[in-house]
Amino acid sequence: MHEPLRPDIAAIIAAISPLDTAAIAAARARQEQLTKPAGSLGRLELLAIQIAGITSQEQPVVANKAIVVMAGDHGVTAEGISAYPAEVTPQMVLNFLRGGAAINALAGVVGARVVVVDIGVASPLEHPGLLSRKVAIGTANMAQGPAMTRDQAEEAIAVGIAIADSLARDGVRMVATGEMGIGNTTAASAITAVLTGSSPAEVTGRGTGIDDAQLAHKIAVIERALATNTPNRDDGLDVLAKVGGLEIGGLVGVILGGAAHHMPIVLDGFIAGSAALVAEKLSPQARDYLIAGHISVERGHRVLLDALGLQPLLDLDLRLGEGTGAALAMGIIDGALAAHRQMATFAEAGVSEREESKSNE
Amino acid sequence: MHEPLRPDIAAIIAAISPLDTAAIAAARARQEQLTKPAGSLGRLELLAIQIAGITSQEQPVVANKAIVVMAGDHGVTAEGISAYPAEVTPQMVLNFLRGGAAINALAGVVGARVVVVDIGVASPLEHPGLLSRKVAIGTANMAQGPAMTRDQAEEAIAVGIAIADSLARDGVRMVATGEMGIGNTTAASAITAVLTGSSPAEVTGRGTGIDDAQLAHKIAVIERALATNTPNRDDGLDVLAKVGGLEIGGLVGVILGGAAHHMPIVLDGFIAGSAALVAEKLSPQARDYLIAGHISVERGHRVLLDALGLQPLLDLDLRLGEGTGAALAMGIIDGALAAHRQMATFAEAGVSEREESKSNE
Repeated sequence: MHEPLRPDIAAIIAAISPLDTAAIAAARARQEQLTKPAGSLGRLELLAIQIAGITSQEQPVVANKAIVVMAGDHGVTAEGISAYPAEVTPQMVLNFLRGGAAINALAGVVGARVVVVDIGVASPLEHPGLLSRKVAIGTANMAQGPAMTRDQAEEAIAVGIAIADSLARDGVRMVATGEMGIGNTTAASAITAVLTGSSPAEVTGRGTGIDDAQLAHKIAVIERALATNTPNRDDGLDVLAKVGGLEIGGLVGVILGGAAHHMPIVLDGFIAGSAALVAEKLSPQARDYLIAGHISVERGHRVLLDALGLQPLLDLDLRLGEGTGAALAMGIIDGALAAHRQMATFAEAGVSEREESKSNE
Repeated sequence: MHEPLRPDIAAIIAAISPLDTAAIAAARARQEQLTKPAGSLGRLELLAIQIAGITSQEQPVVANKAIVVMAGDHGVTAEGISAYPAEVTPQMVLNFLRGGAAINALAGVVGARVVVVDIGVASPLEHPGLLSRKVAIGTANMAQGPAMTRDQAEEAIAVGIAIADSLARDGVRMVATGEMGIGNTTAASAITAVLTGSSPAEVTGRGTGIDDAQLAHKIAVIERALATNTPNRDDGLDVLAKVGGLEIGGLVGVILGGAAHHMPIVLDGFIAGSAALVAEKLSPQARDYLIAGHISVERGHRVLLDALGLQPLLDLDLRLGEGTGAALAMGIIDGALAAHRQMATFAEAGVSEREESKSNE
């Protein structure tokens, strides 16, 4: 066994309840009465039913949406595993804050607010729109030792929980997970390898765009990190601390906190998925609150979603992160809930049902 | 060879030009300068570039969007090929006009107007919001003879062209194809079999939800229709007239007219796809204006999209029609264009480019 979690984190996990089966049954019954052949809205029907169970509302409204973008740096960039220099992390954080990034444009289309959090960028960052919650000045190089201490990993999770609390108090009813951190596909691959029992080669991809030789090097670095740190796959916090990242820990907290507040949580890509793997290890119940927004081109993402039993909504060849795939998925979810709430029933519209359903016409 | 097309239809086809290669090049160059790894927005980048070529704008704006829902009845329903009675066609048209259908909810989410057209419903229909453009009182039973005369098929196309003209005059810059017509997956399967050289069994599915025995019967009816009518696969109009439908003809016109007006055309599912097959036969150039909104569970849809060389944007297990998949896809397209227009370039944002791109830092 392993050390107990901090009491505040343990309390949030204890607050994550099973989905509301009565609301699920009511939503399913409603879907069967709406003016369409049963099942013909496919995934949209399943989304509406899942969110009814999450929110305990037969006809859920989640108009108030937020995308939390957690930013942190990675000591493992010293090993040369990324196509971009680490200085891009703070540059992109400022780009988010000035509204110039892809996530700003996509969040605007779906009417979601973007919450930008510095949870561990290695350089000083100031901006009136930034939530400064630095747990450390980037992680340590996991190829040489643990990326974080256990305390730092818990503190990162606590930051995410506090942000979810604050959003819930502000009336936010759906949250998406975004991130920025040069080097973080390396951490996500390491986490995914450990928690899905895969080899690094099976779950490591090209990140922002490295070539074959660089990919082989990235895999070797991850193998070294796992050999050096021997993370315990039965202990999600140990895995997060040893081979994870501060922004990944923050997203674990957003997932746990969001689930405790009965919010649907829309996962973005591979990095967010690795946070979901850790969250699910800490709280298997949290899984039911997750919606996989999309599948990215990072090869480990499919492995991870399969392990979580999640089917992605979108497959658009994205590999940007930031929350971009989750933002697009929010538009699909909005559609699913609008159809669920606004459509007329067969009785209301005076539309005939299937031939075999009719009694004596 | 076959008879020439009506002069008005021929004129519209002549007005469909190749995409603007200069605008495509400018949009592609812009994508490479935006603050993201090159290619990391995947399909979104390709959409922005395609729409730049369609509209001749480096940074296209298509805020004004319409979904044209063409409704028509099918004589072939006398053969018992649908799970629903034909009376559902007018009932659902009234549901669209009262705002109670799935398409109304989904169009609302993406801010598109819904244009409902009676191009051939078999019963009288009146509503202030309805465009009454009845070409015939439903089609004839294609299992016994041609569904339409050649004149009727041309008239249906002309109706669609006139609607595209009118929308363009109203400032609409993107159009989606929707439809309603009990029995119309049978027509779409027949068209797809002929124009892709497939057997009816390969391209016939369960429509609104028939069982195995009913599916075998539906395939047999389509085989009979093809044997009875011997449509000429080199003559799109002959195929449309003999085994198509009035609403399918109307959508052929919307596609041709939309392309002539330099609008991106978002296809919905299998029925809309069969209209695209006919449109492409009449004007191969029109294909470049098409965006496949989604792939439905109807098995012929994949065959048809492959034949057109189109990749669907969404795969959400939909099989409703009405334009629902296209409406959802419009949200993705909005995202693609917002990112393309609003994102900062590397230079504007002061973000470093890839290591190998840098000269002397």
